[in-house]
Amino acid sequence: MNAIKNLFSIEYPIIQAGMVWCSGWRLASAVSNAGGLGLIGSGSMHPILLREHIIKCKQATNKPFGVNVPLIYSHIEQIIRVIIEEKVKIVFTSAGNPATWTSILKKEGISVVHVVSNSKFAKKAEDCGVDAVVAEGFEAGGHNGREETTTFCLIPYVGQTVSIPIIAAGGIVSGKSMLAAFSLGADAVQIGSGFAVAEESSAHIEFKKAIVNAREGDTKLMLKSLVPVRLLHNDLYLRIAEAESKGASKEELAHILGKGRAKLGMFEGNLREGELEIGQSSALINHIKPASQILAEIWEEFMNEKDRICKLDF
Amino acid sequence: MNAIKNLFSIEYPIIQAGMVWCSGWRLASAVSNAGGLGLIGSGSMHPILLREHIIKCKQATNKPFGVNVPLIYSHIEQIIRVIIEEKVKIVFTSAGNPATWTSILKKEGISVVHVVSNSKFAKKAEDCGVDAVVAEGFEAGGHNGREETTTFCLIPYVGQTVSIPIIAAGGIVSGKSMLAAFSLGADAVQIGSGFAVAEESSAHIEFKKAIVNAREGDTKLMLKSLVPVRLLHNDLYLRIAEAESKGASKEELAHILGKGRAKLGMFEGNLREGELEIGQSSALINHIKPASQILAEIWEEFMNEKDRICKLDF
Repeated sequence: MNAIKNLFSIEYPIIQAGMVWCSGWRLASAVSNAGGLGLIGSGSMHPILLREHIIKCKQATNKPFGVNVPLIYSHIEQIIRVIIEEKVKIVFTSAGNPATWTSILKKEGISVVHVVSNSKFAKKAEDCGVDAVVAEGFEAGGHNGREETTTFCLIPYVGQTVSIPIIAAGGIVSGKSMLAAFSLGADAVQIGSGFAVAEESSAHIEFKKAIVNAREGDTKLMLKSLVPVRLLHNDLYLRIAEAESKGASKEELAHILGKGRAKLGMFEGNLREGELEIGQSSALINHIKPASQILAEIWEEFMNEKDRICKLDF
Repeated sequence: MNAIKNLFSIEYPIIQAGMVWCSGWRLASAVSNAGGLGLIGSGSMHPILLREHIIKCKQATNKPFGVNVPLIYSHIEQIIRVIIEEKVKIVFTSAGNPATWTSILKKEGISVVHVVSNSKFAKKAEDCGVDAVVAEGFEAGGHNGREETTTFCLIPYVGQTVSIPIIAAGGIVSGKSMLAAFSLGADAVQIGSGFAVAEESSAHIEFKKAIVNAREGDTKLMLKSLVPVRLLHNDLYLRIAEAESKGASKEELAHILGKGRAKLGMFEGNLREGELEIGQSSALINHIKPASQILAEIWEEFMNEKDRICKLDF
């Protein structure tokens, strides 16, 4: 029995990443209803709004779902309180120290998974008592690690460091890449970009179209001196790239970035001036589809590719 | 039957990358004798020296071997003449335009493979008539592509673009990672860092020890404005990183790099001031061993992991 299916009581070891401005109750419940694990991304929600999304998600599905919580969030105490009060059973923490909140959540009977970009943080998360880690490689969209370790190298590093289950993330968008993640030692996959374009994603339709139209080389990890984030090329990206090539200070970069750029681009559809967080795998995404179809196609390809590999003749 | 085994008449679809200062006749013949494909790296050889290495390689093995040729090499005409005169049957070209030399080599009955870092160049190489491509991801050591596309994303991109066989490179150092490459659609793997530490590698013993001691995050893709190259951290690396963070010009970076730094570090063992070209997978390499043992262990793990994947229960 697969460890992650077992941990979450889900049908397929496929997790939809909690993403700012994309994964509200509609996407999370659609993925959970399809047999995967849907996550509400609380990073772009006020605690009051998060409560609404949790309540609606419970109405939309009777299957397990979770909430992703960036631990550096300013309303973190309120977010955690909402999660406990609403009896959410699964929490994925990211962007912060798992020491503070893991034991509090675990005492409430909540399964806790922490997102890491290197094996040092994976070990720390394991020591804090998390049930599993998401190991997210350099190719992933949005915020990312400074070591630039790719999924290909990260999963084996983490695998030789921790003994808890590993959920691979970064560059995974198909059954083939899911099988590659399992080959490297993962027990499940977390898919972000692939679900950001789902019909149920709350991303703006223009952002979804931009993801579908993205080609190879159209994203890059930027703002490494500030907070590394993988962005799709646009006018904002070009201004940041130019400033970085001239050796801009953190303050100058923060000024260019400003505030509210992710909402502007991903939720409001301003493709030129918004911060468009998406992964390298966007170049492999060609259609906007229902989440259930995305999940079913990945699973079917995974099983077919597994058969192909098993039949390889040497 | 595996397309790459068939193309080269080799026992295992494992290719040892042609590497400057590492892969002379000793390493290439050792890998070929073990059933893989050994490549002499001509990038660090004068044409007269290359001829010596080819002659010695033919004496050391009666199995197929090849030569890697960076096409931007200053003595390229002489290098190609030596290869043809010495009746080398396999050539891997890299770092340059495959249009010029592919047809000349093919007319001599030589199998030609071109190394690419994106699907556009893969298509171009296919159109030039090469027999296969090496698709090399961001995590690979040494010179690399500007798009920073990782192996996880690159292999599927190239797979949907060309119909010739694909050899995956970048981050592959074990049977697990070899299986992941096959899952993504590769027909074979090319391994660089994993063989740079072989006993038969001509790299300086201090460089081999530095690779064995390398940890996660110890390499980074540098000099992107000049010629992107993945380097191991050392004093030279730090000077380059500092200059880049201050927005140094190409000329300033070229001045810091100077001449002969790769030889200084990789061949002469000056770990502080040399250019130490190695991949992210160096953090997973822990022993100096004979090439035959490295290859045998990778193949054994590959077959075992293939069995594990086939038996996965969902």
